[in-house]
Amino acid sequence: MPALTPVNPERQRKKNRMKIGILGGGQLAQMIALSGIPLGLRFVCYDPVDDCCASTVAEHISADYDNRKKLAEFAGQVDIITYEFENVPASCVRYLNALMQEKGSAVFPGENALHATQDRLREKQLFEKLAIPTPAFMAVNHAEDLEQAVRLLGLPLVLKSRSGGYDGKGQSVIRNEHDLHEAKKAIKHDQLIAEAWVNFDREISIIAVRSRSGQTAFYDIAENTHQNGILSTSFNRPDDAMQKKAEMLAQRLLDELNYTGVIALELFQTGDQLFANEYAPRVHNTGHWTIEGAACSQFENHLRALLDWPVGSTRSIGYSGMINFIGELPPVSDYLSVNNAHYHDYGKEPRPGRKVGHATLVAASQDSVKKMTETLEAQNRGLARQ
Amino acid sequence: MPALTPVNPERQRKKNRMKIGILGGGQLAQMIALSGIPLGLRFVCYDPVDDCCASTVAEHISADYDNRKKLAEFAGQVDIITYEFENVPASCVRYLNALMQEKGSAVFPGENALHATQDRLREKQLFEKLAIPTPAFMAVNHAEDLEQAVRLLGLPLVLKSRSGGYDGKGQSVIRNEHDLHEAKKAIKHDQLIAEAWVNFDREISIIAVRSRSGQTAFYDIAENTHQNGILSTSFNRPDDAMQKKAEMLAQRLLDELNYTGVIALELFQTGDQLFANEYAPRVHNTGHWTIEGAACSQFENHLRALLDWPVGSTRSIGYSGMINFIGELPPVSDYLSVNNAHYHDYGKEPRPGRKVGHATLVAASQDSVKKMTETLEAQNRGLARQ
Repeated sequence: MPALTPVNPERQRKKNRMKIGILGGGQLAQMIALSGIPLGLRFVCYDPVDDCCASTVAEHISADYDNRKKLAEFAGQVDIITYEFENVPASCVRYLNALMQEKGSAVFPGENALHATQDRLREKQLFEKLAIPTPAFMAVNHAEDLEQAVRLLGLPLVLKSRSGGYDGKGQSVIRNEHDLHEAKKAIKHDQLIAEAWVNFDREISIIAVRSRSGQTAFYDIAENTHQNGILSTSFNRPDDAMQKKAEMLAQRLLDELNYTGVIALELFQTGDQLFANEYAPRVHNTGHWTIEGAACSQFENHLRALLDWPVGSTRSIGYSGMINFIGELPPVSDYLSVNNAHYHDYGKEPRPGRKVGHATLVAASQDSVKKMTETLEAQNRGLARQ
Repeated sequence: MPALTPVNPERQRKKNRMKIGILGGGQLAQMIALSGIPLGLRFVCYDPVDDCCASTVAEHISADYDNRKKLAEFAGQVDIITYEFENVPASCVRYLNALMQEKGSAVFPGENALHATQDRLREKQLFEKLAIPTPAFMAVNHAEDLEQAVRLLGLPLVLKSRSGGYDGKGQSVIRNEHDLHEAKKAIKHDQLIAEAWVNFDREISIIAVRSRSGQTAFYDIAENTHQNGILSTSFNRPDDAMQKKAEMLAQRLLDELNYTGVIALELFQTGDQLFANEYAPRVHNTGHWTIEGAACSQFENHLRALLDWPVGSTRSIGYSGMINFIGELPPVSDYLSVNNAHYHDYGKEPRPGRKVGHATLVAASQDSVKKMTETLEAQNRGLARQ
């Protein structure tokens, strides 16, 4: 990547304030903008959805990701561009990056970070190259590859589409001969990857941030649970025995990618071993607790990193638990009546499997945050079943 | 005030989200909206200034406060109305209140809270009625009243316009015969109030919140300094010896006014005595530290109170220091390089004496927050003098 003209912090003191472009206008874009407006930043989001979440706090360009005219208009309006989801088409980012580089700026995180994560095979190969342990894997393109995968990786194994999947979509588990038979029938020259099953003790993630000039910081790891492939809860884990190891693995990614912005690395833990599952080159759902639970949130730190401002403190404020609201929102009063509970409503229409909000609880002890969160979460799931 | 139909919290789960109207579109309105958007609330601000701060995060109706047509349009769009400054014309609030009451809502805090604070004489009389100690005072309408004020209150005394003043505007100190002579010449049937001079040890304020159903909470008191009549710094004071006394005084106001929302009571301390200076029926500059320094900010709690949601925890997170940026902004990097410093840029044009932003520092000890804040504040003032 060519050397960049540093963004001038003085610009934001002017009337025409610094404008940040965000590809995608969902809740992540909204939370980025909410954290940046107090810093004097202004936002433009680019999202084909007319009534997207972020449009309440940002100018909104509503167009498809392959609309060159609108993309050029977008690039012309902003000082720097980032994205809130990694499935943004590579061609779109390449086009915008070229436009931004003409004016001494760029799209951050860089295309290289996006390139690797848009294909699970490339992603796993990157982990291998960096000696980041990852479950054994194999490319699967034909029915016969699947037979070999079973021989090499054993059963159960996880079959995933190489691109485009999120929230557990595009994944299936092959547990036995029957599943294998069904999968072989279904496979149609798809680009797939087979991964060995990991009998993990827990799922964790680490959120890291690296600024344009290389200042790096890590949040406390989060311990995560999923329901039907969708993140359900995250708990920060101050002073966890795995913290240093997780940081070391994330650091390898940051260095290799010469990374700018916030990154999330998801890991499986078995005994004292960590296996990388995937990384996301963006702010991440398992870091939402940082809004109220850390000195400086992942959202503000993402912006600071992009603008090469000093990275903010990632220190945890006590113990946090985050509960995702999937499908629909629970009554706000159930949550706000709990001391130190914070309620987030993304402004989205209810729909099964959709992330429509979350809550974060902050407490002085791990036990109490765990108990409070689990009580509320159970209530919330009971509600969703009604 | 008639009984109100309770605002239905379920409404905010619908597509047409609950809309809060704010009279005034300055930084306070912006901070209210920034705290409410994550809760799924949407905002409309009413401000004659075209490019007001809050217009980045709220719909904006740009019209004068006596434009009945526009006021009616405003009331028609929102579910509840509040205000960010107490100098909003009483007739405007009365008109809006009538419109809102037709649909079972109202303007909060109530007209009674506004009525008393819009005239310093009425405000002092209210303090007297509630046995809230306040400096001795006297109405001054003619030059001869001034003579009597000097006899009764002694010198120095403070002469203030009864209405419209803020940030030290409309005030003068009479210290000697010369000042008295000048004041007598200048006085022209103005509605003034003379107040005895208080040789205070410190200025403090207490921010309280009371919901529509009467749930009440108090933040830790703040110790404040002023420069040229404008708030310069605020430090929260957890476990202060004056906390209970300040709460008791504020409680009397809340009860008397059957108050809804956040209120700020400014007090002078002399020895272990407190004297009320004034109150503000709104979110307050001396409560800005609560954004990062308390579990739930004054802005979110103001909204919770209006909507009769459970009041959030007012607990301090460590020790906070807030520095106002007056006239112009210091370079953002000076502040962000300090651990746990938060920078707020209101998006206003620089202008002498204008509040254009603030910073809050949070630390684990009172000493360290004091030292850090004072260093930065000195730097900031040095910069302003250049």
